[in-house]
Amino acid sequence: MVMNEIEELREAVALANRVLHHTGLTTYLGHASARIPGTDRVLIKRNGTIAVSMDTTTIKDILLADLDGNQLDGQSVGKLPAEWPLHAEIYKARPDVMGVVHTHQRWATTFGIAGAKILPVQHPVHAAVAGEEIPVYDESYAIVTTDEQARVVAETMGKRLTCHLRTHGMVFAAGSVQAAVWTAVDLEYQAELTYLASQIGTPNTIPMLFMREHLERRKAGQAGNSWSYYQWLDEDENIKSNRARQVQL
Amino acid sequence: MVMNEIEELREAVALANRVLHHTGLTTYLGHASARIPGTDRVLIKRNGTIAVSMDTTTIKDILLADLDGNQLDGQSVGKLPAEWPLHAEIYKARPDVMGVVHTHQRWATTFGIAGAKILPVQHPVHAAVAGEEIPVYDESYAIVTTDEQARVVAETMGKRLTCHLRTHGMVFAAGSVQAAVWTAVDLEYQAELTYLASQIGTPNTIPMLFMREHLERRKAGQAGNSWSYYQWLDEDENIKSNRARQVQL
Amino acid sequence: MVMNEIEELREAVALANRVLHHTGLTTYLGHASARIPGTDRVLIKRNGTIAVSMDTTTIKDILLADLDGNQLDGQSVGKLPAEWPLHAEIYKARPDVMGVVHTHQRWATTFGIAGAKILPVQHPVHAAVAGEEIPVYDESYAIVTTDEQARVVAETMGKRLTCHLRTHGMVFAAGSVQAAVWTAVDLEYQAELTYLASQIGTPNTIPMLFMREHLERRKAGQAGNSWSYYQWLDEDENIKSNRARQVQL
Amino acid sequence: MVMNEIEELREAVALANRVLHHTGLTTYLGHASARIPGTDRVLIKRNGTIAVSMDTTTIKDILLADLDGNQLDGQSVGKLPAEWPLHAEIYKARPDVMGVVHTHQRWATTFGIAGAKILPVQHPVHAAVAGEEIPVYDESYAIVTTDEQARVVAETMGKRLTCHLRTHGMVFAAGSVQAAVWTAVDLEYQAELTYLASQIGTPNTIPMLFMREHLERRKAGQAGNSWSYYQWLDEDENIKSNRARQVQL
Repeated sequence: MVMNEIEELREAVALANRVLHHTGLTTYLGHASARIPGTDRVLIKRNGTIAVSMDTTTIKDILLADLDGNQLDGQSVGKLPAEWPLHAEIYKARPDVMGVVHTHQRWATTFGIAGAKILPVQHPVHAAVAGEEIPVYDESYAIVTTDEQARVVAETMGKRLTCHLRTHGMVFAAGSVQAAVWTAVDLEYQAELTYLASQIGTPNTIPMLFMREHLERRKAGQAGNSWSYYQWLDEDENIKSNRARQVQL
Repeated sequence: MVMNEIEELREAVALANRVLHHTGLTTYLGHASARIPGTDRVLIKRNGTIAVSMDTTTIKDILLADLDGNQLDGQSVGKLPAEWPLHAEIYKARPDVMGVVHTHQRWATTFGIAGAKILPVQHPVHAAVAGEEIPVYDESYAIVTTDEQARVVAETMGKRLTCHLRTHGMVFAAGSVQAAVWTAVDLEYQAELTYLASQIGTPNTIPMLFMREHLERRKAGQAGNSWSYYQWLDEDENIKSNRARQVQL
Repeated sequence: MVMNEIEELREAVALANRVLHHTGLTTYLGHASARIPGTDRVLIKRNGTIAVSMDTTTIKDILLADLDGNQLDGQSVGKLPAEWPLHAEIYKARPDVMGVVHTHQRWATTFGIAGAKILPVQHPVHAAVAGEEIPVYDESYAIVTTDEQARVVAETMGKRLTCHLRTHGMVFAAGSVQAAVWTAVDLEYQAELTYLASQIGTPNTIPMLFMREHLERRKAGQAGNSWSYYQWLDEDENIKSNRARQVQL
Repeated sequence: MVMNEIEELREAVALANRVLHHTGLTTYLGHASARIPGTDRVLIKRNGTIAVSMDTTTIKDILLADLDGNQLDGQSVGKLPAEWPLHAEIYKARPDVMGVVHTHQRWATTFGIAGAKILPVQHPVHAAVAGEEIPVYDESYAIVTTDEQARVVAETMGKRLTCHLRTHGMVFAAGSVQAAVWTAVDLEYQAELTYLASQIGTPNTIPMLFMREHLERRKAGQAGNSWSYYQWLDEDENIKSNRARQVQL
């Protein structure tokens, strides 16, 4: 990637972090990152020592680091998040992954806490995110801040799009940061619908046959037209009225 | 219909698409359409290759097509949605239908997923939308994008206002696009109330006797005063703050 | 009451209707009214032939009528609502009632549909609205638009603050329109908390001993400091962003 | 504390009250207070005779009082809240407590009403607020407005961060008003997640081992980076659109 492509990716990572707020999945906690293709370098949102709403993340808040955990720029802006290893170890274990997202989103997190399964219940393109059973990392109750813990998360996750962090939240990995964000958003609706439907009946699910190609596309990094929607939304002034809609996420 | 009447109908279809966002039933997925009376032509929202919030749909986003699937204008704007057959086959099967709506709205979709029945529980005029048992299309798990699939949907729907697409969403058909939109909105509240009431007791329902005339009016295309409310709402600047209130719908 | 007092009451009724929207209990359906003390005259929001968001109700939308159902002014603005008898028969049956409110509010209506009891669960001042068991009118499934139906509602309601209209909504009656509105708002939270608490345990309730005086005050027309809050809220520009937050109510 | 430090604390208390609204825990009911370190003086939001949205609380609305209940300034602004003893008795019983918060927040209050336990289910730092079983004050159904009642609340609360007021709401006490507010916010999400998870399975919980230090830090008054987030949010114009989002709290 040449320099302006790296800056474009840095902007995409900033947008990804903003989108996690626009779609109600985060307030000031959580982060999205992207790997620079063909390198051992990653762009990630800085830590939250001075915390602000994630929908204000700009290119200035995105730091460059290598997979050994060395911060390569932005030292005056901030530091790598404490959960940096969560991203790094996934990038190390999976050469195909180009984007990682971590949230405490309400509905998906509920399923991890309950030890229940999010089912693929709505629309093969979107339900694909729940097509493969979502693994659960629960080896440690502490926040994942060490390489050793994160290695176990990556191992638990295998080649899948998503992993529950049992009493914590979610982590997503895909072929692009855009596809990782879209996966987080789609899983949230699958989780909510699974929850609601299971209160009044037994949810019908979509067979993998109808979702396989959509799942593979996300893993390959395709984000359909969702990204154009998020970009449009991001430029809309009204989206700021979404702030503090929810209790801390 | 003379030309300016067609343009008025085109504006009504644009407004219908915006209203589906204003009332929280969609974000950027879904569409409303209308048939030009006495013709085999239909006005429908363009596809979402570049996706934007549905509350920005304008007359420029509405395409004209015939029931053979030929797009007759707007080729520089976009293409017919992939789910075009869902609308077309209903118009073909039912000469009385003048408006069709498709959404992934939360509460009604939940009932389709669960195989549970939305009951007519609140106000005979509004509950009429749940007066007839809502049929379920579940022959295919794929998205309805072919004529053959859509023919089965239309057949399943019969002469009714609504049909569940089992693990996907809803489709509505009425005597006008305004009545189809109003039906989508009313069914969402009947579904939510059925859900909540069934968690604390056995819901009381309204006998068909009290809803029959209201049901027939919707099928005939009457939308009561709801449409004047939606028009008023649509002109209100504040409604834009409704964006991204929900996860992708 | 002298003329400017009547105009002040007319403004209070307009504000009452706006408050029902500000607090999320209505969108464009429903109405608040007040009796002019010592007379057989009532001020009520006009019907909704051209429907607008209830938070736009102004003094111009408030009509004067007598208890025989004669509209005494505003003929160029609109007509009495179809549910006028619901208000009138309560005023006729109960000389102490000075304000009546009708809504389709979500949580309270749910309890009427389910045949479940809203319990007095939170704060003696607010829970007082659920201190007396709430009667249910379910003699007719039709909307209450005739004097005969409305007489039965008033009879069912007796001397209480609230009545369920089984598969329709709620009606509230108190010693002032302000107290009637405050009752609608408070009952909604009692209903929501009763619902939520009953999903995880058996709700504890407040004995009548602790609520009796608060209940009597409401019946006498006192609205505590809630009304000053609603007045303040009403003058805040930001409250308009509350529009179309919910599906039709 | 020197004078300008006291004024800074007064501003922090005003901000604390606003934050309780920004985060959806209150509308116009409830209050936050802080003790001036090393003294028997407390800063608290004035009573609500003229009630306004809590997000408008300014330094002018904060009164100074001593623990005997003498109001020392702001007599022209208002009076001490009726629930002043709730704060005072906690400060008297616990020299380590520097901040107290009282709310009627939805999810946590639900658990008190139901006699159910809020579990530590999400993230050791945040779940710490539910690490110790939350005691329940239910000796009197009346609002706590007397010294005697409040002494029993303080006794029931012991050295813990939180106490349920059975059919009323919550009270929080910590080593700073910032930590008390943060605790209220965090407990609300733990309560919501406990509720949702228990509807679909048995919630997994975090052992105290992983939360102990975080719990101790809150009791000591540390509020992590949450306070910087709340300050940022407070200066954002868009947060005003959060008004009247909920029924009275």
